[in-house]
Amino acid sequence: MNDKIDSLCRVKSGLYGKDFLLTWEKSESDLRIIFDVAAILKEMRRKNISPRLFDSGLAISNFRDNSTRTRFSFASASNLLGLAVQDLDEEKSQIAHGETVRETANMISFMSDFIGIRDDMFLGEGNKYMLEVGTALDEGFQKGVLPVRPGIVNLQCDKDHPTQAMADLMHLQNEFGSLEDLRGKKIVMSWAYSPSYGKPLSVPQGIISLFSRFGMDIELAYPEGYGLIPEIVEMAKKNAQQSGGSLNISHSMADAMKDADIVYPKSWAPFHIMQQRTELLKNADKDGLKELEKVCLANNAKYKEWEYDEAKMKVTRKGNALYMHCLPADISDVSCSRGEVSAAAFEHYRIKTYQEAGFKPYIIAAMMLTNRFENPGEVLMDVLKRNRKRVG
Amino acid sequence: MNDKIDSLCRVKSGLYGKDFLLTWEKSESDLRIIFDVAAILKEMRRKNISPRLFDSGLAISNFRDNSTRTRFSFASASNLLGLAVQDLDEEKSQIAHGETVRETANMISFMSDFIGIRDDMFLGEGNKYMLEVGTALDEGFQKGVLPVRPGIVNLQCDKDHPTQAMADLMHLQNEFGSLEDLRGKKIVMSWAYSPSYGKPLSVPQGIISLFSRFGMDIELAYPEGYGLIPEIVEMAKKNAQQSGGSLNISHSMADAMKDADIVYPKSWAPFHIMQQRTELLKNADKDGLKELEKVCLANNAKYKEWEYDEAKMKVTRKGNALYMHCLPADISDVSCSRGEVSAAAFEHYRIKTYQEAGFKPYIIAAMMLTNRFENPGEVLMDVLKRNRKRVG
Amino acid sequence: MNDKIDSLCRVKSGLYGKDFLLTWEKSESDLRIIFDVAAILKEMRRKNISPRLFDSGLAISNFRDNSTRTRFSFASASNLLGLAVQDLDEEKSQIAHGETVRETANMISFMSDFIGIRDDMFLGEGNKYMLEVGTALDEGFQKGVLPVRPGIVNLQCDKDHPTQAMADLMHLQNEFGSLEDLRGKKIVMSWAYSPSYGKPLSVPQGIISLFSRFGMDIELAYPEGYGLIPEIVEMAKKNAQQSGGSLNISHSMADAMKDADIVYPKSWAPFHIMQQRTELLKNADKDGLKELEKVCLANNAKYKEWEYDEAKMKVTRKGNALYMHCLPADISDVSCSRGEVSAAAFEHYRIKTYQEAGFKPYIIAAMMLTNRFENPGEVLMDVLKRNRKRVG
Repeated sequence: MNDKIDSLCRVKSGLYGKDFLLTWEKSESDLRIIFDVAAILKEMRRKNISPRLFDSGLAISNFRDNSTRTRFSFASASNLLGLAVQDLDEEKSQIAHGETVRETANMISFMSDFIGIRDDMFLGEGNKYMLEVGTALDEGFQKGVLPVRPGIVNLQCDKDHPTQAMADLMHLQNEFGSLEDLRGKKIVMSWAYSPSYGKPLSVPQGIISLFSRFGMDIELAYPEGYGLIPEIVEMAKKNAQQSGGSLNISHSMADAMKDADIVYPKSWAPFHIMQQRTELLKNADKDGLKELEKVCLANNAKYKEWEYDEAKMKVTRKGNALYMHCLPADISDVSCSRGEVSAAAFEHYRIKTYQEAGFKPYIIAAMMLTNRFENPGEVLMDVLKRNRKRVG
Repeated sequence: MNDKIDSLCRVKSGLYGKDFLLTWEKSESDLRIIFDVAAILKEMRRKNISPRLFDSGLAISNFRDNSTRTRFSFASASNLLGLAVQDLDEEKSQIAHGETVRETANMISFMSDFIGIRDDMFLGEGNKYMLEVGTALDEGFQKGVLPVRPGIVNLQCDKDHPTQAMADLMHLQNEFGSLEDLRGKKIVMSWAYSPSYGKPLSVPQGIISLFSRFGMDIELAYPEGYGLIPEIVEMAKKNAQQSGGSLNISHSMADAMKDADIVYPKSWAPFHIMQQRTELLKNADKDGLKELEKVCLANNAKYKEWEYDEAKMKVTRKGNALYMHCLPADISDVSCSRGEVSAAAFEHYRIKTYQEAGFKPYIIAAMMLTNRFENPGEVLMDVLKRNRKRVG
Repeated sequence: MNDKIDSLCRVKSGLYGKDFLLTWEKSESDLRIIFDVAAILKEMRRKNISPRLFDSGLAISNFRDNSTRTRFSFASASNLLGLAVQDLDEEKSQIAHGETVRETANMISFMSDFIGIRDDMFLGEGNKYMLEVGTALDEGFQKGVLPVRPGIVNLQCDKDHPTQAMADLMHLQNEFGSLEDLRGKKIVMSWAYSPSYGKPLSVPQGIISLFSRFGMDIELAYPEGYGLIPEIVEMAKKNAQQSGGSLNISHSMADAMKDADIVYPKSWAPFHIMQQRTELLKNADKDGLKELEKVCLANNAKYKEWEYDEAKMKVTRKGNALYMHCLPADISDVSCSRGEVSAAAFEHYRIKTYQEAGFKPYIIAAMMLTNRFENPGEVLMDVLKRNRKRVG
């Protein structure tokens, strides 16, 4: 651990004082710092070393959508560093009554160190909202309203799901040895059938935009008409070119799986449907939403064979590609009659998906730590030296 | 306090790393350890000594039923030891959407030290659910998903309410001097009339199964047809035989109270009704539930004289038996027109029932501490020596 | 800071062990202690000195009405001192099911250090409820139920909003230099038009009753029929006489603003309407409530010109009176089509209103600290000397 921290000390971080909204706004070097910090924090936790760096302070969680695992990951990361979580529950609060974002952002931040935001319901809205909050916090800090500029962590927006994509990549690091070992590996990011509709695009978008930066060969597979936000796909293509990897789009799950090292079958709603849905939601058009849902589910139903099962698994590399999912998966005969993955295929990698999820708290904690401390290596060295026990 | 801790150091604990689900799974020696640890923690709190043993860590509260006092007791115990409470609110989360128990159990536990679960609505379900969670956590820990195996504390299930029964017994220890002083004391665990129905069986079951192990003479009184789970009553009878006490079942509250040292009048739903109710709830049979409620309330209404009042109090030992209740009680003319206890009878022991409830946070903290530390005595001695102030 | 703490050490505090319910129950000297403690805590926070005084302990938040900013202020203050917040959410709990206040007050307090209560819906109820809770806690502490008597902080009641009024006055201290500099300053506490009804009286009442004690010239302006609780207005008049200030009531916003140093335009419901509303709410008379709302809104609509705009601003002292608001304000064309203040007038002082709100967490923390420590100066000197960092 000493060595890891030592080498971290020699890298200059560009993360200090910056919000973490989109992975593509961060340099590769900065992303690597986050992986290193996360790995060190994980090892410290196992060795009963407490990396508590805040004696007091609040971490605000602002979830505009349901969530269990991300909520708990955020709470875990905050707690690990010594922060208390305070929920901004918009039902309980007065926000719905005409308060402006910029006012609320300041009102909740007098003693806050971080705000974690999840806002993935409306296309064109989530990232915009986070930027608005950030601008409000900048103003509040500059004008002496806030003693500290709280950092923002994107816990899922309409464009990206950086804590998920980063945790997923850390999982691959762990499974394959290092980021370098991922070069030339084939990952299939595939649409999968689900009996529900309206699932956000941020996971596949987060995956292709991040993984394409590390020389991987990405196959993005979906039924025609189920495309992602075009600009993000374009960006991922360019990333792949630059990193020596590739991005290929195809339209058959079964074909795509051939020789895959890694598979990520996951449902999402088509981009153009999400656009329509956003309009309908904005207008509170209930009939329109019902109609759209009906059409979409009927459309989805045409692609029931987009289920990842043992037959598809068989054609992957050695019949045994690493299966990934952000969870919860729609598992056929378990959580639904027919879903994204068969129970048998899921079971092969069930535990691995839990491990995959287990990196998220550390990724979030690393985002917080690097936001607040200019030299994360030095800070972690101090933590190691002071050797405070977490328990006992 | 030094002496108490010293003698605790000499006892070998069997509680380390074990969930606390049912008192009858624990040896008498282990139960005594919990009482001793709880008493020491209570004294430390009064003396402004902080027994904080966790620098960070989460305690998850998973309440599948409403609760104020148990919720606050769990929060208090967690906070006393240094843990932050994180609610697993199943309405806010995605659990209702097909997630399996074993997945969720792992997802919430990456940085959790304890999970407190209350699940008392369905007969045959609560304890089963806790065991399932435990099995999932075992798997997650063994396979490297979790850095620590979180301990489970049963905050009320269909069979037992161990934190209540243990707090109640600690209260008796305090009132009568010691566990030994309870030998030969007569306690009446009696059904009482309530204008509501469907109250869980876990309190009376917890009381008779635990108290029967300490040589007490238990009178279990209820109207015919209002029996508890038969296996638990059988177990309590055997406990009584072995401990030199007795368990007698009778069907008149007024008669049962004669010469009682302690009385515990409390409503519950009959076992066979709870079975029917469970089936109806499982099938979401609203009409069936309404019909059952009607029949039950009509049945309850036949037993309105099962109210503990001053007349019944008069026939107890010296007219002054210790009155117990897990609270809130249905107090006639206070919380309902006619209930479990008359206002006058309740008032004699109102403050004592508050004191009774006041042991619960320490019992929970003791369950946590003994789960996590192999030698609780040594740990508490260290706490005493380091002498950290709680306030100031 | 050393000097400030030194002089604080020489003042005898009367705040120790006393609830903070109404500012008029506190001596001027004690109020000044709170301002001083709040200012020192604020400076410590900026200098990264942690004033954590509790190693563990709970602060209960009992909100009987919606709130964002007061909720976060309470959470911030509690966290700053080392306390974990536990919400008493009356929907989740069993309180609605006939539990008495005195029982619940004890049940939540076994390990609580403070209870923050907001109860401003019913005239004649909020303060009464807090007193009831206080009496229950006194009993619980005296009879050995509670190890500590938790302090109560009024987070808004039917009569007063002390944390708001104190934070507002601290803001004026900051803007004008000192409490002494406020002598002879003209503040207009004015009713303002709002498209909603039923807004509590506690803010204007809190302002006039507190500010009148510091030699200010108060103009209380409202349309005829929109009076406050008469006894509180009488008290404020007496305060003004004693302090060398004045209190004048008038009925034109435009006229009142002339030569004002400070303006506080804010809507409220007339006292006699709040009385009617309270009766209707108690009787759950939905039709009556709808009818009352209709009448009130129609009445409000007669006074749409009671909007604070740049024209009215122009006649204030140097055309630039300090604008205050407890937030959120009803801003015309922003949060409603027509409201308490025009967007242009608000924008001049928007940031100042954020700063105004920013004093509240420190005021609450100071109320807690002075409740728990007999000599706040000494305690703060110890904090300064130990020099524990909040971050890093």
